[in-house]
Amino acid sequence: METKGASLSRPNLHLVPHPRAKSKVWRYFGFDTDADGCILHWRRIYCRICMIQIAYSGNTSNLSYHLEKNHPDEFCEFVKSNSLLSLLQDKESKVKTEPMPQQCQETVLKQSVAFENVNRRHSDLTSAVISFVCEGMYPVSVVEEPTFQALLRTADPRYSPPSKMELAMKAMPQRYHQIRDAVLGEVAGVVNCGVSADMWQSQTQNRMYISLSMHSLNRNGPGYSFSLSSKCLKTFEVPDDNTAENITRALYETFVEWGITHKVNGATTNGSVDIVKACSLLDLSVQMPCLGYTINRGMNEAFQLPRIESFLGHCRKLVDYFQQSVMATYLLREKQRQQSLAQCVLISDRVRSWVTTLTMLKRLKEQQAVISAVLVEDSDNHQLSFKDSEWNMVEGLIGVLQPFKLVADMITACRYPTISMVKPVLHMLLNTTLKAKDGDAKEVGMAKDVLSKVLSSTYPQTSEIATFLNVATFLDPRYKRLPFLTPHERSQVESKVIEEAKAILEKQRYENAVTDELAPLSDEPPSKKQTPDKHSPAGSNVGNPLAVIFCQSGTDENQEELHAQVMEELSNFKSQKILGLNEDPLHWWSERIGLFPVLPKVLQKYWCVPATCVPSHRLFSSSGTVICGKRNRLAPAHVDQQVFLYENTRSCYEAEPVEDDSGEWVLGQDLDSGSGHGITGQAIAQYQTVIIP
Amino acid sequence: METKGASLSRPNLHLVPHPRAKSKVWRYFGFDTDADGCILHWRRIYCRICMIQIAYSGNTSNLSYHLEKNHPDEFCEFVKSNSLLSLLQDKESKVKTEPMPQQCQETVLKQSVAFENVNRRHSDLTSAVISFVCEGMYPVSVVEEPTFQALLRTADPRYSPPSKMELAMKAMPQRYHQIRDAVLGEVAGVVNCGVSADMWQSQTQNRMYISLSMHSLNRNGPGYSFSLSSKCLKTFEVPDDNTAENITRALYETFVEWGITHKVNGATTNGSVDIVKACSLLDLSVQMPCLGYTINRGMNEAFQLPRIESFLGHCRKLVDYFQQSVMATYLLREKQRQQSLAQCVLISDRVRSWVTTLTMLKRLKEQQAVISAVLVEDSDNHQLSFKDSEWNMVEGLIGVLQPFKLVADMITACRYPTISMVKPVLHMLLNTTLKAKDGDAKEVGMAKDVLSKVLSSTYPQTSEIATFLNVATFLDPRYKRLPFLTPHERSQVESKVIEEAKAILEKQRYENAVTDELAPLSDEPPSKKQTPDKHSPAGSNVGNPLAVIFCQSGTDENQEELHAQVMEELSNFKSQKILGLNEDPLHWWSERIGLFPVLPKVLQKYWCVPATCVPSHRLFSSSGTVICGKRNRLAPAHVDQQVFLYENTRSCYEAEPVEDDSGEWVLGQDLDSGSGHGITGQAIAQYQTVIIP
Repeated sequence: METKGASLSRPNLHLVPHPRAKSKVWRYFGFDTDADGCILHWRRIYCRICMIQIAYSGNTSNLSYHLEKNHPDEFCEFVKSNSLLSLLQDKESKVKTEPMPQQCQETVLKQSVAFENVNRRHSDLTSAVISFVCEGMYPVSVVEEPTFQALLRTADPRYSPPSKMELAMKAMPQRYHQIRDAVLGEVAGVVNCGVSADMWQSQTQNRMYISLSMHSLNRNGPGYSFSLSSKCLKTFEVPDDNTAENITRALYETFVEWGITHKVNGATTNGSVDIVKACSLLDLSVQMPCLGYTINRGMNEAFQLPRIESFLGHCRKLVDYFQQSVMATYLLREKQRQQSLAQCVLISDRVRSWVTTLTMLKRLKEQQAVISAVLVEDSDNHQLSFKDSEWNMVEGLIGVLQPFKLVADMITACRYPTISMVKPVLHMLLNTTLKAKDGDAKEVGMAKDVLSKVLSSTYPQTSEIATFLNVATFLDPRYKRLPFLTPHERSQVESKVIEEAKAILEKQRYENAVTDELAPLSDEPPSKKQTPDKHSPAGSNVGNPLAVIFCQSGTDENQEELHAQVMEELSNFKSQKILGLNEDPLHWWSERIGLFPVLPKVLQKYWCVPATCVPSHRLFSSSGTVICGKRNRLAPAHVDQQVFLYENTRSCYEAEPVEDDSGEWVLGQDLDSGSGHGITGQAIAQYQTVIIP
Repeated sequence: METKGASLSRPNLHLVPHPRAKSKVWRYFGFDTDADGCILHWRRIYCRICMIQIAYSGNTSNLSYHLEKNHPDEFCEFVKSNSLLSLLQDKESKVKTEPMPQQCQETVLKQSVAFENVNRRHSDLTSAVISFVCEGMYPVSVVEEPTFQALLRTADPRYSPPSKMELAMKAMPQRYHQIRDAVLGEVAGVVNCGVSADMWQSQTQNRMYISLSMHSLNRNGPGYSFSLSSKCLKTFEVPDDNTAENITRALYETFVEWGITHKVNGATTNGSVDIVKACSLLDLSVQMPCLGYTINRGMNEAFQLPRIESFLGHCRKLVDYFQQSVMATYLLREKQRQQSLAQCVLISDRVRSWVTTLTMLKRLKEQQAVISAVLVEDSDNHQLSFKDSEWNMVEGLIGVLQPFKLVADMITACRYPTISMVKPVLHMLLNTTLKAKDGDAKEVGMAKDVLSKVLSSTYPQTSEIATFLNVATFLDPRYKRLPFLTPHERSQVESKVIEEAKAILEKQRYENAVTDELAPLSDEPPSKKQTPDKHSPAGSNVGNPLAVIFCQSGTDENQEELHAQVMEELSNFKSQKILGLNEDPLHWWSERIGLFPVLPKVLQKYWCVPATCVPSHRLFSSSGTVICGKRNRLAPAHVDQQVFLYENTRSCYEAEPVEDDSGEWVLGQDLDSGSGHGITGQAIAQYQTVIIP
């Protein structure tokens, strides 16, 4: 049916309704198509009446909204046809029930349609509220805040959200079990996984927690590519007593609960004594330190060197003065204007993190000339100004910190496992960044020493960790040359890869043999399991007594065959062109699965162990502060489910939205507007007359 | 116009539209009226078609929604009439603009109506989002969280919220200035005020802040009653260096900014050295300790007594065991069932606060029999069970803490100033609760001593604070007898009241005289101010040289007159019937303003000083934890405006919605459901087989 506006349609639009359209509203809307009738954009539709383009997100509510607000006649038509339709449908479905008088029946049916509409909207909103609380990790009490209720009332005056009791007792556990089932399904298919333990503190609740996540490199079927999957399994409280033993128990229970006891290949932790002990008690073969924690710890130790600590204290005082004194802020802006520099304020590293300390130092360096000029004029605060040696120190520290920042950014930007980067990064840092240089100030040299010690003691050169990391790096087509190892070390790595590959092949063969032997029995009742099945296919070796000799794994011949196969695959891998440093190694492997029958399995075993024990954006950005603030508000009774839902309904690469703080924003406004650092125009005048008489 | 459903109307309903109805939708709805045609319920309306009752909140959007969903025919009618109406209105308003072809004009007009509707809804939603962020004190980044955006999209697919940049740079400052203007207007009319300094820490930002509030007892006009007004004025950072001086400066700037420098009568603080010093530097006459902080500090000190600390440690271990061990939880429930006790868990005082410690102890006492029974059976944990002396200690401590809890509850429940309660409460605690008793365990006696010392050293018997509190108490019609003072002390209090009242009267007379003298000049340009106005009314003394003698304040005669007036008022006050202890003293005073010309002014001066430096619900309940959690998430650049908006758009009596934590909820669910303390059914089985072999 053509509507009256059709005559206006632009000649180049060929509108078609949704191919699976159910709603009559599609009569008034359509997608644009190409010459072959293929839909051009699935997210854009056009109104046939006014030809306006509308975003389409999969439901038709905004379509009927458009109709209602812009085309009342057509909307009436639509509403009536809809009512008639549902009337007919309802009549059909109620044909066997007792007959009612026509008039009465119509009223009831209309009401039921209305009820259904209201109901659907109600449940959509409730579902969105539950998502906001659970997947946004807000305390359930948010639904009882007057402003939240007012927001929902504005959105729909007839809607009232679930109570916090309903949320906590019903909706949240339901959502939890729903997501849990999905995660369980995914976990079931995993062969090798790594786990990571995120130890965190709720200051408001005065409790320590561990959130345990598991990581695996999956392929969802033969044609699929590799993808890294990370799932949060459990959050539990860390008790004060018998901490290591209690962590062990909690970890073990979690492994059993999720059926991964025999799949866990390694654990990445922050290295705290109790967690490390728990991993040992659980006999986890790989205990990986967290690269982020290690760097952060190294930085903390370096910043605690007395001379560096006092120097940074000096920097902070300077920044605080420029942030808090209206005079200094004013003068800074004036000087910046005079020198045609960008208008910006100094940045403080109050939220102690080496990343913000670096930002503070870099901003100081940038503004060196302006800062010095202001302090020359500000006679009361000469003592804040830096000597040349101190400006050198600023530069020296930036020189040390900057490469770490690049590493942090590189790791954070990665959308594939970063375990293969650990060795190259450590080598680069230890042999370039942290190498003592002739011009180094004494303090800078000391900082380098401390950082080197922390890095090399956490990742010792000759240890299981080192071997593991070397193999992980070798399997990366970007790094497989291992230029930082000696030829001897390289051949050791290759031997390890061969060993792993052979072990996997052998296991596969053994399992195939076992499966062949047991498969026909597995689904039968236990009573039958004693009698071997006589009807096995002729081609199978099952039941043949000679199989013990010919199919036995571990015979010399078999070994040779295995070895040859692995060697060929390895040599093939080594002969492949080296991948660019900025390319995606996971994509590389995904494309070459056909070429390599065994190596990808070794890859899955090594690359499932993460390089950091929490997503790296939380280690190196204010994302970490946001998550702390959010977790702090959770009640102990809901912490497990809420963290679970939060983590498993988002990608682990997705950083939390952060506040773009202080620094840049303040200057966008006029100082007189009274925002910023609690100083108003009135107070400025006051300050100038009262404090500086 | 009657609609088809009118014939169905219940005979007892007489529907009328809204008296100021503008929308045509009122054709279909009405309020019920009584025999005289008066509307019976302003919040309930009836649909004339289906006679269903609908809640009415002042706007008509749910009415048209009802129509749309239930009565499509009438809705079409309404939509069409509405379009015609606006068409006519628009035509009228556009009569002078250039004429358009009829068809085109109609389309444009329809679109503009639609646009206006969409626009209004958009701005309503935006306003609600701003309120949610500002008045709910959420970080602005919440608008960029996917779940929040999804919630809004569900509410209205065409709506997109403001960005966090827009919120922080535009909407929030606008809202701030709007509320600020309102507060400024209110503050301008205040004569005497008290201030309170709330010192708090943002752990995530690693900063200390002070939020300064002002309090005053206002009457908004002659016929009005007294009401307590509390406004948050400013939040500023507390610097590490020269703390006291910097606080002084910030306080002074705030006083100037809000024009209250000469109105501040006293400050209530947490007693921290720097704030106290700042108050001295500012010469604030009354420096009131916070009753809540004082009690909390006393409790902390008592709980740190070595023997009490170790005893509470023992209690916590017991509770932790019962909260964490699945076995113990199971046995506890079984025993409770056997003994027909309420199903409840033990409560921990993890969130260190004496109020939760009391809750922990009371629950232990309640469940004494059950706990002992469980521990008898649980052979591994005998060491956790209490000796008789320890159960006595539980009881003894409850005896000390319970009266404090009653005091806390009483103060929190008050909807009027509590400064008059401080003296009676201190007397009661010191002379009843904390009095040593023969049966007291040694530790309980020591706790009482510590608490007594803290209370009596913070509020010394002979000090300005004591005098101030006595006057405040005397002015309370419930407490005016001051039974805890000696007759001599009582007469001192009365003298002080007389002195204050006389000072106020004298000041009034002087101000009246000055106003008389200056009034005619005040609005004229400065050049005229030198020449006295010759045309003053004959009845005025202005300009008469004898006024110096006869109108001079401070003459003996005047003094006597003043004294007599005050004495009469005082004696009148004393002779009034004593008010019941649970009555509202502010209401009492409001009703008797006609009887007392001066005393209410003394009352305003004394009762504006608050008894606690933060609303007491934050001192004694988890409301404090909620506000901490919320404030922790704020960015330093927005903290002043956000705290301002949060505090000034809610009543200070309104506690934050809290999480009803752990304790009671967990047992509502089956243990096997896997919520609660991170233990699932599967894990239980595991635990029983693995850990207790």
